[in-house]
Amino acid sequence: MTAAIDPVDLASRLIACPSITPQEAGALTILGEALQELGFEVHRFLSGSAPDGPVENLFASRGSGSPHFAFAGHIDVVPAGNGWTSDAFTPQIRGDLLYGRGAVDMKGAIAAFVAAAADVPTHRGTLSFIITGDEEGPAVFGTAAIMEWMAERSIRPDMILIGEPTSEHRLGDMAKIGRRGSVNIWIDVPGTQGHVAYPHLADNPIARLARILATLEAMPLDDGTEWFQPSNLEITDLRVDNPACNVIPGEAHARLNIRFNDRQRGPELVERVRDIVEAHAPGARFEAKISGEAFLNEPGPLSDMMTDAIRAETGLTPVLSTSGGTSDARFLTRLCPLIEFGLPNATMHKLDEAVAVDDLRTLRAIYRRMIESALGAG
Amino acid sequence: MTAAIDPVDLASRLIACPSITPQEAGALTILGEALQELGFEVHRFLSGSAPDGPVENLFASRGSGSPHFAFAGHIDVVPAGNGWTSDAFTPQIRGDLLYGRGAVDMKGAIAAFVAAAADVPTHRGTLSFIITGDEEGPAVFGTAAIMEWMAERSIRPDMILIGEPTSEHRLGDMAKIGRRGSVNIWIDVPGTQGHVAYPHLADNPIARLARILATLEAMPLDDGTEWFQPSNLEITDLRVDNPACNVIPGEAHARLNIRFNDRQRGPELVERVRDIVEAHAPGARFEAKISGEAFLNEPGPLSDMMTDAIRAETGLTPVLSTSGGTSDARFLTRLCPLIEFGLPNATMHKLDEAVAVDDLRTLRAIYRRMIESALGAG
Ligand SMILES: [Zn+2]
Ligand SMILES: [Zn+2]
Repeated sequence: MTAAIDPVDLASRLIACPSITPQEAGALTILGEALQELGFEVHRFLSGSAPDGPVENLFASRGSGSPHFAFAGHIDVVPAGNGWTSDAFTPQIRGDLLYGRGAVDMKGAIAAFVAAAADVPTHRGTLSFIITGDEEGPAVFGTAAIMEWMAERSIRPDMILIGEPTSEHRLGDMAKIGRRGSVNIWIDVPGTQGHVAYPHLADNPIARLARILATLEAMPLDDGTEWFQPSNLEITDLRVDNPACNVIPGEAHARLNIRFNDRQRGPELVERVRDIVEAHAPGARFEAKISGEAFLNEPGPLSDMMTDAIRAETGLTPVLSTSGGTSDARFLTRLCPLIEFGLPNATMHKLDEAVAVDDLRTLRAIYRRMIESALGAG
Repeated sequence: MTAAIDPVDLASRLIACPSITPQEAGALTILGEALQELGFEVHRFLSGSAPDGPVENLFASRGSGSPHFAFAGHIDVVPAGNGWTSDAFTPQIRGDLLYGRGAVDMKGAIAAFVAAAADVPTHRGTLSFIITGDEEGPAVFGTAAIMEWMAERSIRPDMILIGEPTSEHRLGDMAKIGRRGSVNIWIDVPGTQGHVAYPHLADNPIARLARILATLEAMPLDDGTEWFQPSNLEITDLRVDNPACNVIPGEAHARLNIRFNDRQRGPELVERVRDIVEAHAPGARFEAKISGEAFLNEPGPLSDMMTDAIRAETGLTPVLSTSGGTSDARFLTRLCPLIEFGLPNATMHKLDEAVAVDDLRTLRAIYRRMIESALGAG
């Protein structure tokens, strides 16, 4: 039997690697060695090229056959930013908290799952780690590349637990069973520049854009569903760059974002917006980028397991939510039932990101229960 | 009797002085000496201080008592800009045209009126020149200061002719009997910054601004009058400066301009816009600057005189218009009936500004007829 792993110690060693996307900075080596010690077969491979790559990814598995329970996560972190109390990449425990970039998002959760895997040294079926180095970046050469690699080898989990920091105020208060989709749209409205005193010789693109924006603001989307909040459109930027008070500008620009639930489809939303733009500004330039479609894993055996494990260790019943931003769950959901659960996210992506040492230990216990429920002790 | 003055020669000497606002650069000295030679009493005086001043202005008069006919204009010019065929401040005749900054706006007209004053050496009443050095600039220390200076001395003309370049395609096709008013308004809409995934925690200022802009675009003004085109509102700038696709911005800015006829008053328009802004964005910052109110000199004896003089010299009947931008007529109209007539304006404020030599001679003849009609030969 292998020795127990201290999740605080492992999290600290991972935090000490400044693995800002797409650098792994030694973190994958530490993780790979820890997993090898636990009997995992570890695969590391590079994907992609500059400027968004190359990205180093990791797949590790122990055991064989089904059931196959996978833990998914990312080893990369967002940049530190200026103003930390102590160095972002020098893990430090002050009081009850372990500080460092990635402490909650999500090196802490990875360490907790490794410790849980050490706690359950034998099990039925397959236990695996799907670790990307490109979740905080463009996510082009990360999870998508691992999935391709897995598909080539006919590796397909039956259940996936993603360790994103889904808890809000206390560890265990929220898990995620779906995510909204997201699309960004750029609109460039051309006009004819002129002098404000001679408006008949000009065509003010801002007048057209104002009508577009008002129509978009009034565009009905939906009222949400049992599991999703209503889809929502936000205009996020406007730009004209006209320094002259007496000049009608020649072009006006806007950018918007739609977060949408599973009653909508990205391409259809894009078409609706495009129709509005075309109606008020024929010939406008239009660009759309769909980051992901909405998806939902309706509550079932996996979320029941998750709820039981959380309740047993924390006494809390997690809200099964679809709120918040996107995650790599948008890719992995194509494989099998999936749930996201991890640490409280109050400090993620912020200065002085920190995890409660107690939360790391409790999370390890929750994850251990998940391995036991999913695979059964061997 | 004084010798005749060649308006082409005088215009050339004025153009050679780079009198970019607020510099007189010798131009007022040349003008003052020419007027003194013609028997005018010349007053020059400085007004204001940095950065918009000091500005040097000139008032000159010949004769006494009424009727008092004044010619008004500006000796300052806008900067040359790059790309002239020959130096902007080195007058040059090529073909039928005299080139140089100020040729049409409006050193040419000043030279033509001086030549006309030389052509009518004796007359009843008072003939005067009201010349500002600050028409192309903020117009704070120019015509307003001369009017104060005149008021202190109880000098009040009965008729004013402003030599702005009002002709459009041919000399004589248009004179101006009024001008629209103009107001610029700046709107800063505050909001609460946030993440697009959590819109309930944010307050998107662009959503508020979109409703403001749509309401402003639909705001009824008027259908114009017999003499004025409809009042018109143009949104001239939008600004948010939000680089992040997933961020709801904290502030949004807009700027607009209203050109309005004499059915509107500046302060009332400002209040209407302010009410719309307040309705959709309570607490928005709001700034308005009224450049001038609309005014009209309904056709009467002065415009009849002008029409007769133009028709006699060119065969054209001028359109009596209120179109185009503002001029210092917005100040002088408070004194007495006023009309604006001058050279074709196609090249004003542009590269290679040029006046037809023939137009300068014809304008001198038109102006001479105006002096004779207004004052009668002595
Ligand atoms: Zn994350
Ligand atoms: Zn002018």
